[in-house]
Amino acid sequence: MSATLTFQADYLERLGEDLFTACGAPREEARIVAHELVEASLRGLESHGVTRYVMYTQDALAGKIKVGVPIRIVKETPTSAVVDCGLNFGPVTASRMADIVCDKAALSGLAAVVSQHSYHVSRLGSYVEKIASKGMIGLATCNSFKGGHWVVPWGGREGRLATNPLAFAAPTSGDPLVLDMSTSMIAEGKIRALMNEGKNVPAGCIQDAQGNPATDPKAFYGPPRGTILPFGSELGYKGFGLSLMVEILGSTLAGVAIKDEFEYMNGLFLLAISPSAFGPQDLFVKLMDELCAYQKSAAPAPGSRGVVLPGELDFALRAKRLKEGIPLPQETWKQIQEVAVQAGLTIHHP
Amino acid sequence: MSATLTFQADYLERLGEDLFTACGAPREEARIVAHELVEASLRGLESHGVTRYVMYTQDALAGKIKVGVPIRIVKETPTSAVVDCGLNFGPVTASRMADIVCDKAALSGLAAVVSQHSYHVSRLGSYVEKIASKGMIGLATCNSFKGGHWVVPWGGREGRLATNPLAFAAPTSGDPLVLDMSTSMIAEGKIRALMNEGKNVPAGCIQDAQGNPATDPKAFYGPPRGTILPFGSELGYKGFGLSLMVEILGSTLAGVAIKDEFEYMNGLFLLAISPSAFGPQDLFVKLMDELCAYQKSAAPAPGSRGVVLPGELDFALRAKRLKEGIPLPQETWKQIQEVAVQAGLTIHHP
Repeated sequence: MSATLTFQADYLERLGEDLFTACGAPREEARIVAHELVEASLRGLESHGVTRYVMYTQDALAGKIKVGVPIRIVKETPTSAVVDCGLNFGPVTASRMADIVCDKAALSGLAAVVSQHSYHVSRLGSYVEKIASKGMIGLATCNSFKGGHWVVPWGGREGRLATNPLAFAAPTSGDPLVLDMSTSMIAEGKIRALMNEGKNVPAGCIQDAQGNPATDPKAFYGPPRGTILPFGSELGYKGFGLSLMVEILGSTLAGVAIKDEFEYMNGLFLLAISPSAFGPQDLFVKLMDELCAYQKSAAPAPGSRGVVLPGELDFALRAKRLKEGIPLPQETWKQIQEVAVQAGLTIHHP
Repeated sequence: MSATLTFQADYLERLGEDLFTACGAPREEARIVAHELVEASLRGLESHGVTRYVMYTQDALAGKIKVGVPIRIVKETPTSAVVDCGLNFGPVTASRMADIVCDKAALSGLAAVVSQHSYHVSRLGSYVEKIASKGMIGLATCNSFKGGHWVVPWGGREGRLATNPLAFAAPTSGDPLVLDMSTSMIAEGKIRALMNEGKNVPAGCIQDAQGNPATDPKAFYGPPRGTILPFGSELGYKGFGLSLMVEILGSTLAGVAIKDEFEYMNGLFLLAISPSAFGPQDLFVKLMDELCAYQKSAAPAPGSRGVVLPGELDFALRAKRLKEGIPLPQETWKQIQEVAVQAGLTIHHP
């Protein structure tokens, strides 16, 4: 176990803003990137959080992120848009896509947008939260380039899909309901973390290269490389189906083929549905509140502290970390300081 | 094990048409109901198949199904419609909803419709298949009335949701991809079938009334009544989230509250997305074919006969049963003959 440091969210956000500005990003865009990554850390999703300052800075300095490039609408109708993100920072372009889909859905009742050339978008739930904050229902899916295809199709022993998350949000009179889930049994980052801690992966999550069930992380990392199973354990055909839905909406619909060459890309699909196209907005929010209360009214199962709604724990952790700070491993902090130097920025612990 | 009889699909379809016509349905609508139920049986989904001739006839004769009542559009825009199904046969009104959503999406790029007062719609996958047959992407969700709330919210021991299926389809140059899955670990009908066979339920599917894990079907049926777990085993919070998505789209969006009084109802949501709003239709179909081929190209895991795409086994079984006939338990056949007599129709084995 390495030591952990604790930072205030607003410190990390200003730091990120300076860091990505130093990489050449317009300050407004740098602020969006930092904000999205800090929001992920606040919710405990560190794999998509401030840890990514390192990769984002390296990729920006190496030109893999096309800093400051504006998005381009390739094709649009009143209900749809194909957005070329130009490999600018993913949180910037995905936020723009969320704005576009909300504007269209506000006028047309519902709308969907898809990306081309999108860099890593960070926390998928963020974009459906944005849609819910406008009083609408949001659905998002996100696939990844071929290099990240570690998840097997049901019955296979070779990877053909990424962990392909999907997210859904709907407004209530309080925090929105936010589901943000991968369609695989485990994320690659979690397998690596378990390996580093000398622990096994829970049964039913990974296979070795021959397709045999495995629990040793080394069976996954190989060589030869193993694979991850789709979500659902013995009902994994369901997770496979959901993963294909993510792939089709996030990539096929945007006209993007599965290609061999390395291109660091997410394929993002955002759908917004305006409840007011179907009935009174206030009735919808009232029924959402009733639905949530009805779910929470179920007596807890033994050993459970009660029913937890999607997103509820994340919002609770966010409130806690806004007060108490965000923990980061010392090693991560060291790496952030190093890439900051590469970007020409000197930073000190606050 | 009771004896099994075998019937040709077209015989069962004509029989159903006569049966529901005898219940007072316009012949054209009777034909739709029979066709939908036979199509479910052809795919091996007997719980939603010809077995339902019995319940549908009883409910029609008892006036619970409002035979022949036309659908009514409560509210609509170019992209949306709220459809009052008037408790006519669910397959009739759901098919009309599929027509409406396809017509709107063909003009507007995408569209969604929701139901009010929908009777049992039978096989959910059917309606996304209809959307895919028009070259579009279909998403459907279906919830159920409070009387069917046997599925616990994650962490609970009291039922608050039905098995809440979702379905997704997308066209290829051959059979469409069709995912049709419940968001629970097991269907109630399957628990009953296992009990009748003297078998246990697989671990991780049900809880007794106190919320303890159980495998004995009697722990579910009680009294006191037990519950079903959401899809996902130890990751069941994902299935719970998906189930809430089904509930919100299928019911909350339509302005339908969760009420205590018994009303036999499904809440149906249908979404259609026209790929041609996003790019060339033929490119989309070509990329769908490539995606399917890429998935199928994965070498099989040990003990697997290879990758199976969503819907693939159902289409294969359909082709087989179109040739060889549909098996029905003798007891089911006896019940169908009995309700036919009640409807004033005398039927004989072909």
